[in-house]
Amino acid sequence: MSAVAQRWGERAEAHLRALAKISAGGPGVTRLPYTAEHRAALVYLARMMTAAGLVPQLDAAATLIGRKGEGRTFYLGSHQDSVPNGGAYDGIAGVVLAILAVELLAQEGVELPFAVEVCAFADEEGVRFPTALVGSRALAGSNDMATLAPGEPMRAAMEAFGVNPEGIPALARDPAKAIGYLEAHIEQGPVLERAGEALGVVTAICGIERHQVRLRGETGHAGTLPMEGRQDALVGAAALVTEVNRLARSTPQLRGTVGALELAPNAVNAVPGEVRLTIELRSEDDALREQAGAALTRFAQATAKEMRLGLEMRRSYHQPAAPCDAKLRKVLAGAMRTTGGKGMELPSGATHDASAMADLCPIAMLFLRCKGGLSHRPEESATPGDLGQAVVAMAAFLRALPAA
Amino acid sequence: MSAVAQRWGERAEAHLRALAKISAGGPGVTRLPYTAEHRAALVYLARMMTAAGLVPQLDAAATLIGRKGEGRTFYLGSHQDSVPNGGAYDGIAGVVLAILAVELLAQEGVELPFAVEVCAFADEEGVRFPTALVGSRALAGSNDMATLAPGEPMRAAMEAFGVNPEGIPALARDPAKAIGYLEAHIEQGPVLERAGEALGVVTAICGIERHQVRLRGETGHAGTLPMEGRQDALVGAAALVTEVNRLARSTPQLRGTVGALELAPNAVNAVPGEVRLTIELRSEDDALREQAGAALTRFAQATAKEMRLGLEMRRSYHQPAAPCDAKLRKVLAGAMRTTGGKGMELPSGATHDASAMADLCPIAMLFLRCKGGLSHRPEESATPGDLGQAVVAMAAFLRALPAA
Repeated sequence: MSAVAQRWGERAEAHLRALAKISAGGPGVTRLPYTAEHRAALVYLARMMTAAGLVPQLDAAATLIGRKGEGRTFYLGSHQDSVPNGGAYDGIAGVVLAILAVELLAQEGVELPFAVEVCAFADEEGVRFPTALVGSRALAGSNDMATLAPGEPMRAAMEAFGVNPEGIPALARDPAKAIGYLEAHIEQGPVLERAGEALGVVTAICGIERHQVRLRGETGHAGTLPMEGRQDALVGAAALVTEVNRLARSTPQLRGTVGALELAPNAVNAVPGEVRLTIELRSEDDALREQAGAALTRFAQATAKEMRLGLEMRRSYHQPAAPCDAKLRKVLAGAMRTTGGKGMELPSGATHDASAMADLCPIAMLFLRCKGGLSHRPEESATPGDLGQAVVAMAAFLRALPAA
Repeated sequence: MSAVAQRWGERAEAHLRALAKISAGGPGVTRLPYTAEHRAALVYLARMMTAAGLVPQLDAAATLIGRKGEGRTFYLGSHQDSVPNGGAYDGIAGVVLAILAVELLAQEGVELPFAVEVCAFADEEGVRFPTALVGSRALAGSNDMATLAPGEPMRAAMEAFGVNPEGIPALARDPAKAIGYLEAHIEQGPVLERAGEALGVVTAICGIERHQVRLRGETGHAGTLPMEGRQDALVGAAALVTEVNRLARSTPQLRGTVGALELAPNAVNAVPGEVRLTIELRSEDDALREQAGAALTRFAQATAKEMRLGLEMRRSYHQPAAPCDAKLRKVLAGAMRTTGGKGMELPSGATHDASAMADLCPIAMLFLRCKGGLSHRPEESATPGDLGQAVVAMAAFLRALPAA
């Protein structure tokens, strides 16, 4: 690793340690939006922005934006908030790395031929109020303002924080003036670690679909009901769990999970009469994901028919994939190779602010290797060396972008 | 059906309707042991016993026993108690039918060459206190007196009811003086109804074993954790559920059920890291059941190894089968055929007072067809015609028993 990367990595690490202390009580980091911790983190980030030559400003969604330069704008950043008892890297690392990349360029005397805005979005996780991606949606003009109507707890929290949510619609940027968005984020999965790569280029943020499944058979006494003629809802559910796993394992680019399952009566001596379960599918390829959803629906129908079970299955949620921009990916991969990386490609299984920014402009994402693939936990960790390579790669990326 | 059976069936039905009214509030029948409802039911049954020429007496376990005759004793009966919001037949029908069978013989002037005792056991279900089969165990001398020690809530309830549990050990009968025990009970399953038979001869009360299983994999984010290398505890559990069902369906005389299952974290977007489930096996053949338990343990071990899951599996409970006496079964089947039945044989998947009485003397059980196989619910039902055939068959059984 270069001495430059080493130095910037140590600085990034020191900042992230300081920011991790800005947390509510309990293990790990708890920094919810529109709280005293949120405010203290923004004060810290504003100082960092100023040092990098960025002019900080708080917008109506409580996003702190540091701006520099003139003309069309390239966006960078991520979110300041954590989940309860989360880690010191998810979100906040993307803000810190972006500011440091801008500072690195400033130290090297590089003048970019476009403006940059580094965003510290307030509320990406959506754990405090029933919405998410608030700041990035504001820039994309895609917020559901109903969640911020007078009387909504979120609105009161924002007003108490000192911003006026009525100003959010006016935050929407003109797509013609937005060049693109780059977000750095820990991977939250084990792919880079397994491959021995510090950094990776995200191909797309996976689309998601969720199905709510209800299987109904007939409950009965486990001793007195003969096996013949049983309509055991759990036996049907087991077939579905097995098939979701088989299909996802045998289909590249597909992830499939039965994450929640509950049965009734749920007693040692009762044949299960009803099972409710969820199926979640994720893929960077929307068509492939939809085909898998349809195939699993057909499988569930056939299984229910064969086992004489009642079936209710509905797709309760879906979100299309957000592909990363081919040109930005190429520039990012090239920038990564200057730091000794391969520019390895991988999908993002999780949603990020970039998912919302995709509605405004081309997006790119840089993933950092994280220890054990763990995230949303106190153990969440990335090395100073990897953080430094990210700063250097992000600076190289900005420098390599064509004049807007 | 004979006019005799018709008439006794209508009488049985009328008594059971009257007894069903002796219930705590709520739907169905709720008659717990050592309550005002228990007392009122015994008053009713004592009147019935007297009418049948039986001399009623309350023993120290609060079993009401109606006795008649001299010499070695043949026992009949079942339990007076119900589960909360249960039905009007489970247990109490066996008491009513036994009294009416004795009354039928008396009306016909039949003098049996042995004594009979009809028992209305207080507490078979074990839903009020953490023990069960109290009255029948008292006769067999197999009660665990620790559950009745001074200070135990059950002892206080019995004393308030007016009996002294200290007298229970002295209730144990001399096996040399006990000829046998016959219990009539609704089937609580669908076998007789499916076969179109009113009555059946129980071959054995099934043995039971229960296993507590814990599978541990690794939880993770359903989006960021690739399929490759996942250690999904629910996928392992699904394989086990499928195998329990397959094995039990393909093994005559075996019933196998996964009745309870819980997973963690149990969230739509989390790969399940841990599953706990129960396996229950029942069979009239102890060796066959034990082989099945061992085979499932090996299957679970192999599955856990293949899927790289941690496994804890322990047999938490087991109870051997109680076979019904071959001679008594033969007499009972013959008696049933005099009523037009086939004397169809079937196992009892559930435990009964006969399970405890098996420690004292040879046992036999007569099962009655019940509607939809339902029990422990307000909908529990048996027809007057079937009840009448049972009375006639039980009387014929007693008459056909060899002199003691």
